[in-house]
Amino acid sequence: MSSTEGKTITCKAAVAWEAGKDLVIEDVEVAPPKAHEVRIQVFYTGVCHTDAYMLSGKDPEGAFPVIAGHEGAGIVESVGEGVTSVKKGDTVVALYTPECKECKFCKSGKTNLCGKIRATQGKGVMPDGTSRFKCKGKDLLHFMGTSTFSQYTVVADISCVAVNPKAPMDRTCLLGCGITTGYGAATITAGKNGIEEGANVAVFGGGCVGLSVIQGAKARKAAKIILVDVNPEKKVWGEKFGATDFVNPSKDLKEGENIQTRLQDMTDGGCDYTFDCTGNVHVMRSALEACHKGWGESIVIGVAAAGQEISTRPFQLVTGRVWKGCAFGGVKGRSQMGELIEDYEAGKLKVDEFITHRQNLSGINQAFHDMHDGNCIRCVVDMRKE
Amino acid sequence: MSSTEGKTITCKAAVAWEAGKDLVIEDVEVAPPKAHEVRIQVFYTGVCHTDAYMLSGKDPEGAFPVIAGHEGAGIVESVGEGVTSVKKGDTVVALYTPECKECKFCKSGKTNLCGKIRATQGKGVMPDGTSRFKCKGKDLLHFMGTSTFSQYTVVADISCVAVNPKAPMDRTCLLGCGITTGYGAATITAGKNGIEEGANVAVFGGGCVGLSVIQGAKARKAAKIILVDVNPEKKVWGEKFGATDFVNPSKDLKEGENIQTRLQDMTDGGCDYTFDCTGNVHVMRSALEACHKGWGESIVIGVAAAGQEISTRPFQLVTGRVWKGCAFGGVKGRSQMGELIEDYEAGKLKVDEFITHRQNLSGINQAFHDMHDGNCIRCVVDMRKE
Repeated sequence: MSSTEGKTITCKAAVAWEAGKDLVIEDVEVAPPKAHEVRIQVFYTGVCHTDAYMLSGKDPEGAFPVIAGHEGAGIVESVGEGVTSVKKGDTVVALYTPECKECKFCKSGKTNLCGKIRATQGKGVMPDGTSRFKCKGKDLLHFMGTSTFSQYTVVADISCVAVNPKAPMDRTCLLGCGITTGYGAATITAGKNGIEEGANVAVFGGGCVGLSVIQGAKARKAAKIILVDVNPEKKVWGEKFGATDFVNPSKDLKEGENIQTRLQDMTDGGCDYTFDCTGNVHVMRSALEACHKGWGESIVIGVAAAGQEISTRPFQLVTGRVWKGCAFGGVKGRSQMGELIEDYEAGKLKVDEFITHRQNLSGINQAFHDMHDGNCIRCVVDMRKE
Repeated sequence: MSSTEGKTITCKAAVAWEAGKDLVIEDVEVAPPKAHEVRIQVFYTGVCHTDAYMLSGKDPEGAFPVIAGHEGAGIVESVGEGVTSVKKGDTVVALYTPECKECKFCKSGKTNLCGKIRATQGKGVMPDGTSRFKCKGKDLLHFMGTSTFSQYTVVADISCVAVNPKAPMDRTCLLGCGITTGYGAATITAGKNGIEEGANVAVFGGGCVGLSVIQGAKARKAAKIILVDVNPEKKVWGEKFGATDFVNPSKDLKEGENIQTRLQDMTDGGCDYTFDCTGNVHVMRSALEACHKGWGESIVIGVAAAGQEISTRPFQLVTGRVWKGCAFGGVKGRSQMGELIEDYEAGKLKVDEFITHRQNLSGINQAFHDMHDGNCIRCVVDMRKE
């Protein structure tokens, strides 16, 4: 039994007191895990656009005060009653998309969207309806069931997965969101079983998710892999991960062309698969319409701002295009994370290349600022260093 | 050699001289078939909403004067040079969705949307760019590559299929559009290989297409098959073809309910498959949103009015719903019509039950008027009788 087990731990966390303000490094109290909960010492966390979106206050479901963060890796400090899937000392990756293996969704074999703790996770509390975080006498909300911006966090046992302890946590933390999301979309969600060999693919948006779609497409031996981004610096990034072509829609289009027609011209009629990794609803439409008639599929990955809608002429669907989407790439976190880490260890899945910036906990606000720089793909925050 | 072979045939046809006006029965001259063309004596034709839409003038691609009609069965009168797939005397069904078996689309194995004669068919002419119809010295346009509202018509050889001559033509003509469209959508387009046993299905719109989706769903042993229609008379129609439930969204909804939430309540979270057979873009949205999170698929079959768009929140897709569509049910006319006719002959596919009205050629305008009656599913026109 560790000295902290069963006791409240006081540690540092980046607290969001209100929308649109910088995070504040505070001493927070982290209660011990209740039944079917796990307390994790977070070693590393990524900083993702989904965090930024919620923190900005634009997300109508965002509530404060809260501890954000959902790309985390760490070590289990202690477990609550009834936890059998992980144990103290295990190296784990946090899963904002849990996997209970028992609910209708998990049992269906058709989706990774576990329904077991969805309602409470959405409200920012643990499955029993309460929080494990306190600061200055106030309860803090959890975020995405993970709250990795704290040196210690408590998650449901179905919201983390034990992984090979040899895999470096400053890399595996990124498998908790962006990389897995893009790679899974390309290798699981697209088509019947991921992108097929020889397919033509276009990826809209060359951030962490888009670049991971590209590496998934390359792993599946796609023919053309076209990165579309308005930032010219993304060309080199795309090539690094396997893109064969780059189009900048704000510079490269001729008169009378739009991105749809350009992509159709480049691919003899349209792409077999397109991916929106921007969250922009206009881009989502272009991505659909750039698909090949008869079979082209467009996969929405990006999260749009509240209230925004996608639209198109239904003729696009009647003539055989398919509009779909996924969360976390369609990856079942507890069942499939192990394979991803094996692929990383075997050199098949690039992860290191995404890390362009590093910060200690006190630099987390800088990490959010740097995110807007086209050459910042991912910033990894070392949570053990203030 | 028949007495007419190689010669122009003068016969009766229902000519649309201009948009929004009644058809006029005229003497038309039908030129002999050129290379890779087939001249058919049309015995029976159905009357479909797609004809009505074009004739109304609302279809911006509609052009006049034209001979409409696309649900036709007849006998080959003569064939042009190089025609090997059908011969004089064959019983054929006209195919507005041709199948060349040679183009990128046909070879893909992924779609029934043959591309070979698409451009000229869309313009209302034969593949060589000219018309085979003349009336009062003027060329008449073809429609959908079939123009079955003429006692004789000329079609591309890839736009018809020879079928079992024992199958009655006043029934098989309907396999040229509505019945096949709905049945194919349910058994080919939905899912990976059609609706699976035990799936919950909702069908929006209880016309010929919707009722055929229902019989396809029943053939696949779907669990719930819910017909949604604002016309209460459709309840009985739905039951006749296998619907298990009926919802009238203009009468049956409680306060605070919409059709999406009602269907979700009836199916423990949403339908596995929904089908729009209305052409109404608002219904298309409801159909998507009535799908089960994680895997529900909505298939757009109805043709929307020009310029109308579908929309939804992208969250619907990110949480696993799929929006797709099909034309002619995804059925490859020349490869797959034979099976459908076998199913009909074996009593597995209902066709007779769709025929509620009959007319001679001179009653064709009445057939269009009757179409607006909820109890008119299909009117079959006997083209041999004036």
